[in-house]
Parts: sequence; C-alpha cells; structure tokens
Amino acid sequence: MKRGFGSDNHAGVSPEVLEAIAKANQEHALAYGDDEYCAATEKLFQKQFGERARVFFAFNGTGCNTLCIDAMTRSHHAVVCAETAHINVDECGAPSRIVGCRLLTVATPDGKLTPELVKTQLHGFGFEHHSQPKVISITQPTELGTLYTIEEIKALADLAHAHDMFLHVDGARLGNAAVALNCTFREMTTDIGVDALSFGGTKNGLMLGEAVVLLNPALADGFKYRRKQAMQLCSKMRFLAVQFDAYFKDDLWKRNATHSNQMAQLLYKEVKDIPGVKVVYPVQANGVFAQLPRKVWKELQQHCFFYDWDEDADVVRWMCAFDTTEEDILNFAKTLRKLMAEKA
Amino acid sequence: MKRGFGSDNHAGVSPEVLEAIAKANQEHALAYGDDEYCAATEKLFQKQFGERARVFFAFNGTGCNTLCIDAMTRSHHAVVCAETAHINVDECGAPSRIVGCRLLTVATPDGKLTPELVKTQLHGFGFEHHSQPKVISITQPTELGTLYTIEEIKALADLAHAHDMFLHVDGARLGNAAVALNCTFREMTTDIGVDALSFGGTKNGLMLGEAVVLLNPALADGFKYRRKQAMQLCSKMRFLAVQFDAYFKDDLWKRNATHSNQMAQLLYKEVKDIPGVKVVYPVQANGVFAQLPRKVWKELQQHCFFYDWDEDADVVRWMCAFDTTEEDILNFAKTLRKLMAEKA
Amino acid sequence: MKRGFGSDNHAGVSPEVLEAIAKANQEHALAYGDDEYCAATEKLFQKQFGERARVFFAFNGTGCNTLCIDAMTRSHHAVVCAETAHINVDECGAPSRIVGCRLLTVATPDGKLTPELVKTQLHGFGFEHHSQPKVISITQPTELGTLYTIEEIKALADLAHAHDMFLHVDGARLGNAAVALNCTFREMTTDIGVDALSFGGTKNGLMLGEAVVLLNPALADGFKYRRKQAMQLCSKMRFLAVQFDAYFKDDLWKRNATHSNQMAQLLYKEVKDIPGVKVVYPVQANGVFAQLPRKVWKELQQHCFFYDWDEDADVVRWMCAFDTTEEDILNFAKTLRKLMAEKA
Amino acid sequence: MKRGFGSDNHAGVSPEVLEAIAKANQEHALAYGDDEYCAATEKLFQKQFGERARVFFAFNGTGCNTLCIDAMTRSHHAVVCAETAHINVDECGAPSRIVGCRLLTVATPDGKLTPELVKTQLHGFGFEHHSQPKVISITQPTELGTLYTIEEIKALADLAHAHDMFLHVDGARLGNAAVALNCTFREMTTDIGVDALSFGGTKNGLMLGEAVVLLNPALADGFKYRRKQAMQLCSKMRFLAVQFDAYFKDDLWKRNATHSNQMAQLLYKEVKDIPGVKVVYPVQANGVFAQLPRKVWKELQQHCFFYDWDEDADVVRWMCAFDTTEEDILNFAKTLRKLMAEKA
Repeated sequence: MKRGFGSDNHAGVSPEVLEAIAKANQEHALAYGDDEYCAATEKLFQKQFGERARVFFAFNGTGCNTLCIDAMTRSHHAVVCAETAHINVDECGAPSRIVGCRLLTVATPDGKLTPELVKTQLHGFGFEHHSQPKVISITQPTELGTLYTIEEIKALADLAHAHDMFLHVDGARLGNAAVALNCTFREMTTDIGVDALSFGGTKNGLMLGEAVVLLNPALADGFKYRRKQAMQLCSKMRFLAVQFDAYFKDDLWKRNATHSNQMAQLLYKEVKDIPGVKVVYPVQANGVFAQLPRKVWKELQQHCFFYDWDEDADVVRWMCAFDTTEEDILNFAKTLRKLMAEKA
Repeated sequence: MKRGFGSDNHAGVSPEVLEAIAKANQEHALAYGDDEYCAATEKLFQKQFGERARVFFAFNGTGCNTLCIDAMTRSHHAVVCAETAHINVDECGAPSRIVGCRLLTVATPDGKLTPELVKTQLHGFGFEHHSQPKVISITQPTELGTLYTIEEIKALADLAHAHDMFLHVDGARLGNAAVALNCTFREMTTDIGVDALSFGGTKNGLMLGEAVVLLNPALADGFKYRRKQAMQLCSKMRFLAVQFDAYFKDDLWKRNATHSNQMAQLLYKEVKDIPGVKVVYPVQANGVFAQLPRKVWKELQQHCFFYDWDEDADVVRWMCAFDTTEEDILNFAKTLRKLMAEKA
Repeated sequence: MKRGFGSDNHAGVSPEVLEAIAKANQEHALAYGDDEYCAATEKLFQKQFGERARVFFAFNGTGCNTLCIDAMTRSHHAVVCAETAHINVDECGAPSRIVGCRLLTVATPDGKLTPELVKTQLHGFGFEHHSQPKVISITQPTELGTLYTIEEIKALADLAHAHDMFLHVDGARLGNAAVALNCTFREMTTDIGVDALSFGGTKNGLMLGEAVVLLNPALADGFKYRRKQAMQLCSKMRFLAVQFDAYFKDDLWKRNATHSNQMAQLLYKEVKDIPGVKVVYPVQANGVFAQLPRKVWKELQQHCFFYDWDEDADVVRWMCAFDTTEEDILNFAKTLRKLMAEKA
Repeated sequence: MKRGFGSDNHAGVSPEVLEAIAKANQEHALAYGDDEYCAATEKLFQKQFGERARVFFAFNGTGCNTLCIDAMTRSHHAVVCAETAHINVDECGAPSRIVGCRLLTVATPDGKLTPELVKTQLHGFGFEHHSQPKVISITQPTELGTLYTIEEIKALADLAHAHDMFLHVDGARLGNAAVALNCTFREMTTDIGVDALSFGGTKNGLMLGEAVVLLNPALADGFKYRRKQAMQLCSKMRFLAVQFDAYFKDDLWKRNATHSNQMAQLLYKEVKDIPGVKVVYPVQANGVFAQLPRKVWKELQQHCFFYDWDEDADVVRWMCAFDTTEEDILNFAKTLRKLMAEKA
C-alpha cells in the first residue's frame, strides 16, 4: 500500500528509531524497565517535563489513557470528556471495563472542552446515587485536529483543581500540538497544572510504545503494580525506551511533527477552494476534515486511501504523516479537483 | 550488562527479526492488523496449527494468557493451575482483575499438573456458592523447566473436555518444548485437543509481541473486541507480524530453541557434579534450577547475573538464551566450582 | 415523618406483606431459595409471565438491573438507554463496574426511547474499536412518569431482535404500568418479546426484595452463580418470596398501584390550573413533575416533603404511594395554591 | 421443614425483630438510610464499638465482606486468609470480580490464621509481578466453629499494621464469639486494632441485613458510593436498621447466641462418646463438626437435616440455632446412637 491519508499510524517508522533499536540490541539487559537504557530515557523525559515527573512506558495509547484514569479514580468516579474523545469512542469501553468508572460526555462544536461545557457535568457531588466527577480529560490536539491554547488548558486545570479533580491530557499527537503552539512540552503540561499525560510517539514516527507521564507524582502510588496487572508491562523494555531516545535526540519529534503539520496546511490550502469541498474544522495540527459529496468518495479512496469520519454529515478525515510528501498532496488535490468537476 | 543467566528475555533480538522489521518499514500499511503483512503471517500460523486456528497478536504473555482465560470463562468460573503457574504468581493478579474469575491452585512436585492433581479441584459443580471450574491451564515447558509429554497433555485435554472444560497452554517457551520433544507445534496442541494457546516468541529471539492461537475456533467469538478493550491491540501491527515471519522462516525458532536447550544441558553437565550443588528439577528445556549455599550467591551473581528462585529452599534459577555461548557456560561453571571449593 | 411526595419508597409496607412474613416465620427452611416457599412463589410468577419464565429474587432494583445486563452482555457490549434511565443516572455506575460494559445514552423528550432514537446508536457493528450495541433498556413506566404502549414496547423488541440484540425492561413500578394500560404483566412483556425484566415491588408496598424475570430462558445460563458472586443472593430467602405471594394474592399489587395512580391523577387535577404551576410530562402513572418558582419550594417542602428533580429547569417531582390519601393531596394542593398566590 | 442442624440461617426470625419491623411501619421515612431510624441505630453501634466507628448497613455477609475488602484494597493488592474462609470458598469469587484483587490462602489445622501462617504469604513486597499483601482477613468464630482469643486477634492486628496492612474480621457469627469469650464486641475489635468488621445478625435471629463497621474511619472515604455501586444500598433501610435495634435491645443477641452455643455444647456432650463418632474440631461456638461413617448419613439426615462438610474426610456439620431445643438435640443424639449401633 502506497502512502495515503488514512491515519498517521499507517506510516512506518523513522529510520533514526530503527537505528536506535538496532544499536540497543547488544548483550543482555535487565527486563521490565530495570535496565540502564530505561533509566537514561526517564531522565530525558524529566528534562522535558520537570524533575518531579514520573514516567512509565506502556504499549499503546489505550493502555496509557486507561492507566492514567486508573491512577486518578476509583470505580465510583466519573471522567468528564468530549463526546468525540478517543477514550469514549475508540477504545471499546476500556475505561469501563478496566477501571469500572463512568465517562460523562459533552457535545462540543470542535472537539474541545471548555469550563462552561465541563460545568454542565459538575453536579451531584456528595450524592451517592451519582458517579462522582473526578477527572477532566482532554485530547491535545483533539481528535478533530483542533488545538487548545495553553491558557485554555490552564483554565481547565484550574477548574479541575477547584473541584478536587484532576486534569488528564491524551497526548497521542502531543508533538504536533507543541509544534503548532511553538511551545515546549512542559509549558503545555507541567507548568499549568496538568496532572497526568498520555504521551504518544507512534503516530509521529515511533514503531510502538507510548509513555504515561505523571506530573502529579502522588498519582504514581501503586502505579507500577497496576501497569503490570493491566498487561502493559513490556519485558524487553529497552526496545521501547530507546525509541524515545531517538525521538528526543536532535529533535526528531519536532522535525516529524513540523512536517506533518505543514503537509496538513498544504492540503488545506490546496482543497479549500475546490467547489463543493468544505473543510469543517480549523486545521491546526496534522489532520484535515472535509465535507464532500459521497459520490466522489470511492474513486478518491482508490486513488489514495482515507477513512470516512461522519457518514451522516458526509465528512471524511485526511491525516498527514511524517512521511507524507508534497507530491502526495498535490496529486491528491488534483484528483479531487478533477473528480469534483466531473461528478459533483 | 554482559550476558548472564537472569532470564531468556534479558537477551536481545535475533538479527533476522530486526531485518524483517526493517524490511516491513516501507510505505503505509493499514493499522490494527488489517494489512497484508498480518494476513500473510496468520497463514503461516495456520500452516503450523491447522486451518481452523484463529490467530490474534498481542503485546505480551500476560496479555495472551489473560485474553485466553477471558475467552474461555465468565466471572463465576475458575481456572485450575499449578501453584507455580505464571498466571498465578507473576501477573500481579491480572486474571482476577481483568476477567474477574478465580484461580484454583494445586501444589505440584515439578510444576506439572496431572489428572489426579486436577481432580482435587473438580468439585462443587452446580453449587452456586462455588466458582465453577471451567479451564485447566498448564505451562509448556513449565516455569520449573520441566516438560509435559504429548500423552500427558492429551490426558489433561480429555479430562477437561469430559467436564465441559477447556485446556489452555501457556506456551511462552513453546519452541523449547517442541525441540525437546522433537515434535511439531501442532502435534503438541491442535492434534490432542488443546483449546487455546499463548504462543510466545519474545523469550526465544523476538523483540516483543506474542500471539493468542485459538485452536477451538468457537472461542474466537467476540475476541477481537475484548482484545481491543483489554488494551492489547497494536496499531502498527505489521511490526509484530513480521517478527513471526522471521521466526518461522528457515526455522529460526528451532535453531534458537535448540541452542538454548543445548546450553542448558551443557550447564547441567558442568555443574551437576560440583560438590554442594544440587540440580532440583529435571533439565528438560532451557532452564536449570539449582540448590546451592547462599554464601556463594552474591559473588557468583557478580560474575554472571541470575535470580534467586526460592529463598526458603536456597534455590536459584539459571536460564539459557538463544545467545548464550559455550564459553559463558564454561566460565560460569568454573567460577562456581571455584567458589564452592573456597567458600562452601 | 408524616406522609409526603418524596418517593414511593418513603412509604412503608402493606399490612398483608408483613402478615405473610410473620406467617412464614415457622420452623426451619432451606436457605438461598431451595425451600418450598420460593418454589411456590416461582410458580406464581410463571402464572403471571408464562411457563418458560425463569425467576431469580434479588435485593434491590440496582441489583436486578445489573444482573439482567450481566446476563445479556459481555464487557465489550453496550446498552442503549434513555439519558434519564435509572441505570444511567441513579446507580452510581453499577453496570460499568460490575459488568464492564458501556451505556449509550439518548436524549428523549419524555423519558421514552423510540426506534428512531435507538437507531442513532446502532452503528459500528463489527468495528472492534467501538463497544457493540447488544441491549435496548427501557423503564416502564419511565422515570418521568410516562408510559410506553404495548405496541411501542413491541416495536423496540422487534428492533432489538432484528439486530441480534435483547430488550430489557426496568419494571421498578411495573404494577403502575399494568394498571394504567389495563393489561396483564404478560401482555406487556412475554407476549411481545421482552427478554429480561427487573420486576419491582418495593415501590408498591413490599418491604424489600425484587425479582429478575428472564422471559428469554437462554439468559438463565450461569445466572445463579453470578447472582451469588454479585452479592444478590439472600440467605433466608423465604422472607423475600412470601412478600411476592402477598403481592399477587387477591391482587394486592393492583389495588396498591391503582390507588397510587389515582392519587397522581387527583394531584394533577388539583394543581394543573394553579397559575404559575406547569405540569411538564403527561401524568400516566404515579408521579407528577411540575415546574414552579423556586421561591415557593422550601416552604412547600416543609409542609410536605418532596424532591427537586431538575434544578436548572425549576422542576420538582411529586410521587404518590399506595398509602397516599385524598386528604394528603387536597391539603398539599391547597397549600401550594396559597403559596403561589402569596409569593409568586 | 422442621428444625434441623443444616444451618443457623435455616432458622427463622426472633419475634422481637418482627415486632420492631412492624413498629417501624408507620408513615413515611426517607429512603437509603437518611431517616431517623438509621441515625438512631448507628448510635447504638457506636455505643458498642466506640465513637469513631462508621456503620454502613448492607444486605448480606458476602456484601459486607466484599465491601470491606474494597475499602481496604485496590486491584493489585492481595488478602491473606484461611483456605476455609467464607470469602474464599463460599462467595463464588465475589472479591475477584467486584474488587479485582487476589486471595492468598493458607492451609490451617482449625480454620485459624496465626502470625506464623500469615508470614508465609508476606513476601514480594515491592515486586511488581506479585499482588501486594494488604489485608489479613479472619473469621470469628471460624467456619469450623473455632474461636480466636482476644490476644490472638491482637497479634494478627499488630502483624498487619507492622506491614502497612489492615485486619478484617468476618463476624457473620460475632455474637456467638462474644458470648463464648465473655467479652464485649469492642474488646474483640476496636480495642485491639481491627480495621474493618463484617457484623452479622442474620445467623443469630435477624431476618436479613448485616452491617459493615469501619473501626478505622479512614476506610470510610468514598465508601457510600461504592456501597451503592455494588448494589448493597437498601431503599427502605429503616427495616434493616430496626432489626439491629431489637438485636441490641435487652441483649437479644446475647440471649440468642448464648442459647445456640449451649445447644452446641449439649450436642457435643451427647455425641462425643458414641462409638465411631469423632468430633474433629473444638466446639467453641454453635457448630459441631463430626466424622462419622457415610452409611449412616442418609438415614440420619432424613431424621433431621444437616449438610456434609468434607466428603473426602467423612465429616459433617451440625449447626445449632437460636431456636434449637434441648429436645431436638436429645432426639438427634438418640437416633445417631441407635443408627451407629445398628449400622456401623
């Protein structure tokens, strides 16, 4: 399958990451994270997120999100999130099953929670018949390709803390957000009161492996046991750790994310004026969501694969990856323009 | 850290496996297993286990074991296993938490269940106060380095089926067993009625990734949803699949397992006659368990790392890996002999 | 506390029920439902619901609902219900925790699901990232005091079965519905394809104890074990069973429910024309929901207790019980009329 | 069924309890424990257990035990208990399913844990592959009719606290223990460091309903929500509370327990010298466990019902209840003597 716009995890792995893996394939290392590779990588994370950050590698984003929720809640708690949140629609109910808690979902115009939207769910405190709100969970950038500003995240952190709640960030594409906001990871998380972070790399050039970063160190209590129990403890963990080494080294993450963001901007620029095509959300990271007639979908997908996003609204999703090329974009836009002219 | 006897997952990755990963790093592939790499690898598994086998990749052995148990039980069921079973002692209670069922453990002389031992747990059928036995789970080879014969496994499968139960095999080191028994995977599983298998490769030269192989295809009902929900679905799954391609290709698995088994035999041969050292279980796979005075442990570990196994009984575990060398063994045995002479 | 409109479970117990309990307090009886009292009561249920119905007593409505959902689903399934459903808002997340599944909630104008509303949730079948819809759950009468017609329930049952799903009815007040629709229990459930029923009596004159009635007998497989495991198995169960004997005998349930429904109608008649008071849902069972100015709430509650229902909309709930008297209603309406004239 | 020795919950209800229920059946009361009856009863409990005790009514013993464990643990913890503990063998795996934690069971000669026995399970602290021991759970009196002395309980509490663990007491028959030890409830629990107690009454003359008594008030954090979520919150809770009023009033509990203990002593005295009958545990509460030839079981059970306890060891259980009479005992012993003479 050639390159398409299906997902940023349809892309492969940055060469630097494979090299780091190969380089770590030397002699023996203690398993389960007790090795020197992991210790070194944890230090790199602390450089990014501050000395107090506690880092736990996990296998995938669902694992990170679920373990974060597990660290912040007990079964009678609830997590406030957007209706479109990955934890709500794309994890087959992992938080319900693994943690036992509830999600309180809020409809949003653009995938972003606001204090006003969250407050619609902040009632029933102390009433034993109701699940007790304990976490606000946001995705940065959102599943709709939109971004929270630093101030917007801080406002949610403050709201959470004012109610004895925690703020969780699903950062499956946090690199794309940092690049877009031109800020450090820390400015977007630690410095403004984020409690727990799912830090992704797979969608930005890693092979597999993500990291839970607990910025509120109290949440680390007992965490390692529940990571193991939740089947997220890797044995040859050095091969997860060194991927992040490569990711941070020479700002590979930044180069990859900058590129995929730029490709999304280029795609946006190329399609926004095609008659009959409507880009439905601001293009702020590496995804473009467009409404276009269903009669062109199939042929366009054959040219270059992508997923439908909302069948009822005729919206599709185009994700750019670190390996998307300008040529990919230009060819795709050209084909789309042609199909729209002929068919729509 | 140089090579030691700590664990077969202290070893790194067979070069062929890294090559397969690098080779698969081309263009885009559908995520979550819907790609051509995974389809091809599933066919390879079916060649090993029969046409009806259903294959699901997962991240690690705990994930495989837990998902197998989840497929075979509901929360009111119980799994009969040896006290020493990995699912009992080394998974921090994953089956309890994820599935909600109970483990009924049986003390064994050598890590092996027998029909007689299992029968001690087969009572209370129909009595609603008791968890209902539904699965017999064995490890092949066992956590103590011992082996079930094909006939012994068949006897347990027959016992299970006679009680409307299933037989599960934790095959984290199944390659070592196949080599030791000089049989195919299929002869040890499909052909004698094993229902579900956790098929491991990480301890025998893979980087990470294991596979659930459901030989009883009825168990696949709904499995894929619960794999996702249990956080065991990999996004860039081609990189798990191609490791197994390399594993099966040119019998890499067999070469690796043959070697680690041979190294264990060599180790056994070298230490068995050292005065004061007692090998406590038959050496049938790639592990040697030895009783030796605690006063030599520390210095010996500094020479070459290994874990204590049973502090009360003064027993340690020495695991051989695919990259253990004859020289490793001879040096280690020499040091042990010297220490025993000097200290014990 | 004198009589009020707080809840139908603020009322006590019908004298006939206490008499039945006292009468059963003779000698010994087998525990956990294996006694002759329970056997006899199960027959009474089968007379009401048909020979194939399987009956399991439980402690409360949350227990019944959760056990029904448990019988119909596995953890990767989802239950479609109204946003206002008791299982969604008033059980502190029991289904999430105990079953692990998700609730897919739908906003409704009157607490009632329709096929059209349910269909908005029936997508993603076969897609492993999404919880799979498996149950439609309705409350009859609803938490808002409204009723489904028999035809409306049948349409939902048909929709469910067309998608290989089940229909569950939370019948915490099923007696009030049967009286209002002038039908038998069976006509409203068994005859139109309801699969599982939570049959309540506590809100209609019993002391405590409800019953799960499985009209689809396949759902009874393993049910008794999971009732025990979910802590819903009563030891001296004869004292639950005989309450239902009294309930069915001489149609006590019908007399009680007829009375509370009539009291709600009287209350509706007395308040509907009071200026400034607006009854917001059709009064079809034993509850009246009214919008009235908050400034009269407190004083009115001191006269006669009731709960606020929706603070944002200034709506309160008035529930009538089997022991509500005409005098209670007339006094309350008089006070309300007076307060509205003075204050609003 | 006439009186037998099947179980102390085959007996009915003390008349004083039914009277209290009838007396509470007046007007309305707030539901879910917010009424004056419950407030008054909680005070009675605090009189028995000290001012700091927190009391939560629940439906049954399995509910109390599971909620206590839930309050003391998270899913990665383990509970050390005797192999014969009710939580291990008679609750169909409730702790695994509801809490997700593991039970670490210990074989005992008489159903009693000792510090030495518990210590065999206190290892692996800090090792993430192992469930972490967090609770010692004992039953007083044990399931085998034996008793812990106050000193023995204190030693276990001290051991627990020295390891940052909690001590839980399953007191399904705590009244029988208090009478046998001639002590107050408090001396056996609060004063020696018990953290959480399942306080039973059903087996000693109540109809249904038990109480969780948290002597360590920190354990009450969030408890009420999880009681609701775990389906143990009664709506018309006054009818649970007033049973305990009657229980404490005029020492009903003591009279009932004294009687059943005395009946057990009488039974012991009458059978201990019958040739071929061997009482296998000390008779310290209200149960007698006897080994006798299987060929007399059936006919003896027809005379007067009882359960087999251990089929492999030919042991049966005879439980005395508050309503057992001297005549019951003498007739039974006479029949047994006759059968033994004729058949054995």
